[in-house]
Amino acid sequence: MKIKYQLLHKDKNSEARYGTITTNYGTFETPIFMPVGTQATVKTLDVRDLKEINAGIILSNTYHLWLRPGEDIIKKAGGLHKFMNYNGPILTDSGGFQVFSLANPRDISEEGVTFKSHLNGDKLLLTPEKSITIQNKLDSDIAMSFDECAPYPSTYEYMKNSVERTLRWAKRGKDVHQNKNQSLFGIVQGGEFEDLRAYSAKETVKLDFDGYSIGGTSVGEDKETMYKMIDYAIKYLPQDKPRYLMGVGEPLDILEGVERGVDMFDCVLPTRLARHGHAFTRTGKINIKNAKYKEDFTPVDKECDCECCKHYTKAYIRHLIIANETLGQRLLSIHNLRFLIKLTEEIRQSIKDDNFLTYKSNFINKYLKK
Amino acid sequence: MKIKYQLLHKDKNSEARYGTITTNYGTFETPIFMPVGTQATVKTLDVRDLKEINAGIILSNTYHLWLRPGEDIIKKAGGLHKFMNYNGPILTDSGGFQVFSLANPRDISEEGVTFKSHLNGDKLLLTPEKSITIQNKLDSDIAMSFDECAPYPSTYEYMKNSVERTLRWAKRGKDVHQNKNQSLFGIVQGGEFEDLRAYSAKETVKLDFDGYSIGGTSVGEDKETMYKMIDYAIKYLPQDKPRYLMGVGEPLDILEGVERGVDMFDCVLPTRLARHGHAFTRTGKINIKNAKYKEDFTPVDKECDCECCKHYTKAYIRHLIIANETLGQRLLSIHNLRFLIKLTEEIRQSIKDDNFLTYKSNFINKYLKK
Repeated sequence: MKIKYQLLHKDKNSEARYGTITTNYGTFETPIFMPVGTQATVKTLDVRDLKEINAGIILSNTYHLWLRPGEDIIKKAGGLHKFMNYNGPILTDSGGFQVFSLANPRDISEEGVTFKSHLNGDKLLLTPEKSITIQNKLDSDIAMSFDECAPYPSTYEYMKNSVERTLRWAKRGKDVHQNKNQSLFGIVQGGEFEDLRAYSAKETVKLDFDGYSIGGTSVGEDKETMYKMIDYAIKYLPQDKPRYLMGVGEPLDILEGVERGVDMFDCVLPTRLARHGHAFTRTGKINIKNAKYKEDFTPVDKECDCECCKHYTKAYIRHLIIANETLGQRLLSIHNLRFLIKLTEEIRQSIKDDNFLTYKSNFINKYLKK
Repeated sequence: MKIKYQLLHKDKNSEARYGTITTNYGTFETPIFMPVGTQATVKTLDVRDLKEINAGIILSNTYHLWLRPGEDIIKKAGGLHKFMNYNGPILTDSGGFQVFSLANPRDISEEGVTFKSHLNGDKLLLTPEKSITIQNKLDSDIAMSFDECAPYPSTYEYMKNSVERTLRWAKRGKDVHQNKNQSLFGIVQGGEFEDLRAYSAKETVKLDFDGYSIGGTSVGEDKETMYKMIDYAIKYLPQDKPRYLMGVGEPLDILEGVERGVDMFDCVLPTRLARHGHAFTRTGKINIKNAKYKEDFTPVDKECDCECCKHYTKAYIRHLIIANETLGQRLLSIHNLRFLIKLTEEIRQSIKDDNFLTYKSNFINKYLKK
């Protein structure tokens, strides 16, 4: 079956929404943060870790899985859930973002994008049809339409043409989508141009998808512009479908997104930061490699309930990260992901309590040490 | 308290021994294989993994911990167990093997070994007294005497002098050893020279240690020579103390060691092999990167009960290893360690059943596909 979104409560003082999404692999609550498992694994974590941090849904990357191990092997394994032994909901992206960011040089035509594999330089063509066919085989619960994530800044003229093409690509992808157990989201683009965001949103909604993503907000703009891009688009999205802000995972951006009515977020940031020794805490980000943690035998974040914070000290994690031991990277990845997931748990409670704006303000004041 | 060794059963048809060693952190059975946690972590594993593979005791490296994070930080943390959150027995080596293998150039004098740190080139001096003092601070359950692990081949003359010096070093270390909760093992050297092994064993035993190691058997010789070195030394070691064959972890070598009366083994081999995609199976070692496993949706070893083999397929692990995802390295490390630990579990049962030689023969025939 397709996913089912239920809007259960709207915050009285903002656009923040509390809801649930039911999939074939269980129900999760929104707003939610989705850990990214690029190559069919959330880097350094195992599936038990994902359960313990209370991950509701994870994301995996079509581009990477297409190149390696290949969608046919995953189909033969029984789909992505079975392949990676993950029994919860999975969303796959379309590969669009990766062919535009990883693959260079590339060539965009009406048919699709021709580019060179970042692994071996092979010349490849990704089209809307191909992206959807791959995702059908991966058998994720939610698939994404193939879009152009245009560079920032782009001219108005370029962006207008790009938005039109993305709409045509969205329709072509929808037309070949066949997996009845997989839902399909449309993606709103349009850069920082208010009318193009509005146009893109309205036209994408006309195509009638199972949910809507807002793309291209995190590719190099300042925060104010990012928030405006959400504002321009989100008011045209239907209340009865989930809204997903792609590639956004800074705590403050999640709060701003939720306030505007976003339900789903994803980002590689928490795991990437972790691998470099950076950790979220309630009072801001810290760099565990800092010498002041050498003899600090307290947890990374004393308010956190994760495996890392319950059992290990800053001094030990610091040692592991400096000694390049993967346990350090894994423990900090678990912590950073749990930090964002716990943030969304608290956000959901605050929405149910009609208290989101106060929660947001308190969180930010502490995080920025105001 | 010091460790307590109990010899509970001797095999009727060989020198194989079944026993237990009681420490302040619990009792484990022998013969046993000890996973190596070089830098206060068994590479890629966490302490729950260690429990799940039924690790009885782990080993950590004095040289590495001395250089980073430093023994004083570990002492301040409350010792190595607390520092790394490991609640089971720990053995530390003396640093001798590392200064002879990692640190180059080095200069051996009666006082100790002067060498350059492999991390930053700092000139350092490790002496028998320093090694024991560091290990006292680490607060491991079993410490090792500082010895010279002489190169192979060495001349008889060189080895004779080296054995004499190692004996003087053993006495010096014992004289400064103070930690009443830590036991101290002596180390037998002597290369491939029968009389020097005998001399080293008898003189080391006269110094009266809590257990005895046989060193220098795995530094480049053929297997036959290695087994002879054990034979030359082990007959002079007392029955009421544990015997530890250092740096040995190939399944067949463990079986040969057990047959000769060895109780303890350690080696980085299982985790190092795993990180390169190699796995032990009952029918020999396999390279998971081999193309024939691309669509092999069966476990790495169908007879294994580890987390890796219970939940994941060869095709998935192969993908992870080729994509350089640490989950692949961790799952194979868990498997390879569990393989050796399960081997020693079965060995212990076979000794109790006076059936060790039959067990050994069956294992080898299957492993070598005879």
